[in-house]
Amino acid sequence: MIPGAYYAKQTPMNLGFETLRWIGGCDGMLELIDQRLLPQRMEYLRCENPQTLFEAIVTLAVRGAPAIGVAAAYGICLGLRQLPGNAPLLQALEQMEKTANYLAASRPTAVNLFWALERMKKTAAQFAADNPAAQAGILRQILLNEARVIENEDKEMCFAIGRNGQSFIPDGKAILTHCNAGALATAGIGTALAPMYLAHQQGKKFTVYVDETRPLLQGARLTAWELTRAGISAVLICDNMAAGLMKADKIAAVFAGADRIAANGDTANKIGTLSLSILCRCFSVPFYVAAPSSTFDLSIPDGSHIPIEQRKGDEVRGFAGQTTSPENIAVYNPAFDVTDAGDITAIITERGIIPSPGSDNIRRCL
Amino acid sequence: MIPGAYYAKQTPMNLGFETLRWIGGCDGMLELIDQRLLPQRMEYLRCENPQTLFEAIVTLAVRGAPAIGVAAAYGICLGLRQLPGNAPLLQALEQMEKTANYLAASRPTAVNLFWALERMKKTAAQFAADNPAAQAGILRQILLNEARVIENEDKEMCFAIGRNGQSFIPDGKAILTHCNAGALATAGIGTALAPMYLAHQQGKKFTVYVDETRPLLQGARLTAWELTRAGISAVLICDNMAAGLMKADKIAAVFAGADRIAANGDTANKIGTLSLSILCRCFSVPFYVAAPSSTFDLSIPDGSHIPIEQRKGDEVRGFAGQTTSPENIAVYNPAFDVTDAGDITAIITERGIIPSPGSDNIRRCL
Repeated sequence: MIPGAYYAKQTPMNLGFETLRWIGGCDGMLELIDQRLLPQRMEYLRCENPQTLFEAIVTLAVRGAPAIGVAAAYGICLGLRQLPGNAPLLQALEQMEKTANYLAASRPTAVNLFWALERMKKTAAQFAADNPAAQAGILRQILLNEARVIENEDKEMCFAIGRNGQSFIPDGKAILTHCNAGALATAGIGTALAPMYLAHQQGKKFTVYVDETRPLLQGARLTAWELTRAGISAVLICDNMAAGLMKADKIAAVFAGADRIAANGDTANKIGTLSLSILCRCFSVPFYVAAPSSTFDLSIPDGSHIPIEQRKGDEVRGFAGQTTSPENIAVYNPAFDVTDAGDITAIITERGIIPSPGSDNIRRCL
Repeated sequence: MIPGAYYAKQTPMNLGFETLRWIGGCDGMLELIDQRLLPQRMEYLRCENPQTLFEAIVTLAVRGAPAIGVAAAYGICLGLRQLPGNAPLLQALEQMEKTANYLAASRPTAVNLFWALERMKKTAAQFAADNPAAQAGILRQILLNEARVIENEDKEMCFAIGRNGQSFIPDGKAILTHCNAGALATAGIGTALAPMYLAHQQGKKFTVYVDETRPLLQGARLTAWELTRAGISAVLICDNMAAGLMKADKIAAVFAGADRIAANGDTANKIGTLSLSILCRCFSVPFYVAAPSSTFDLSIPDGSHIPIEQRKGDEVRGFAGQTTSPENIAVYNPAFDVTDAGDITAIITERGIIPSPGSDNIRRCL
């Protein structure tokens, strides 16, 4: 198995940037678009160790549930990077376990992070069971390869979500999206934005209203950047303007991503998604969630079991270091909220569409 | 009639600042807290002519429907300020008409602006009819006095709204407010915040969740500043976080102001209010509008007739002057939206409470 050969980067659709990329072999490094700098500058951040990646995840230099999963898989490789190739296998496994536990503490809500780390651990455990006399060097190869597979699957998953969801993009109308569930949130062409990219490629005409998505403005900074680069008509709004647009019958559908989906279909996504889903119900606007199967957490029965990350108050007190509120004002800053399954028209996955998501049809699809 | 004597500033409750104040006599000037600088600095902006005031209104140095009304009344006085006292009455009336038309073009939605200008014009017309031989100097006195009356009435109106609405503030619970309908939006202690100030004075304990209110952050900059100065517990949130709080049963009631209320009770208020009113309906949270009778526009049957101001895209393209989105991204930036009367639990006015507002009980109260 030659890393970089079979699993060479294949983007089924080229948007002109790579959200993340591994450079080199087992002693290589992970490069991420530093999303804190967008849209002003597109710069790659080099991660040569798990600490840099951890910080990148916490500060949202890399974000989006699928992208965090892929990054974490490569993070395992970063943890093994300096281990001598002839080190004992056990030492490599211990080092991997330590790195996985460390990275798992970076963000609590998106389940793809834990999913990717588990998959890397399982691959390592399987290899160790089959090859107890092997040395660290081979495990590193195996794990780098597995990370590449995860990245490649992510790309294919995005494309499949796009194919499955593109018929939901109405020709000649406007849709709305929240936060960034685009290419920048994945290794591929995104989740919620993937159907838009494919519909655009097919020549459909539509406008995307983009919620700016306070407090960290992923909509304004990232989604608006992605869509306009691709030539898709985008209109930026503040999050509190969606209701007026729906009341004026200007929104034909809403597309959102997901950070974790419970067994019954309740969906955690960026703060503000809940509000949109309720407005959609009230104004009879279809509300679609687009997410890969790795976003489902069938171990929890419903959304009340999803841990919601609380972030620092300064994110709300201002923006980019500029304070706009009284000093030390108390702040409530949850990063996510949970949308009721009953308010979701359908979940678009790479394996197919789950209409009126509930425990039964989720299990059937997955 | 000695200006400044009978109508000396009387705040029934002293919050330690005056949103606006007239300095001197007929050749005096209007001073406004420059709300663009809050909460960092409290500075008064001097308006010596209608142009400065016009600019102050357009750029939201002074804002809030009642405060704009009071400021516009004084704006008429600014327009007559340099007219010689012995100028003919007709010249003064023409000058007044010109100033009124000019100021009326500053912002289209808040009806209090037009209401105040009309009232000043009516006062002048009445005086001219009664005293056809009078000179400009006396009309200036009359009009300055009328502006002082309007200001004083505004203060009393705020206090009356506070008294009428204070029983809606639940002891030991949390409420939510949007934008700034506080002292900074009036000459007195506010509209939506007035019940909070009085309830606080009575010793009630409650927390106010404050919507930051994008794009211009009147909640973060002004409401948070006002409430914390007064010792009221305030928690700042982004606009998109209200739904999660309501779902968690943390909001006992929502209080909003109004910029114009149609004959059937449909209410225009700061963009984002519509969304809150719908969430309140869905989560069975009482939704109160607090506004003086001057906010009602009985000439229009419903909210669809309220003109909605569209503001510059740059307000949405950035945050506090810092660009946060791709250059030249298209923007939709309405300053207001219209809440359905059916989603309003009650309108709190200085004349009493209008429960389940509709044409009949609105007419009965007014």
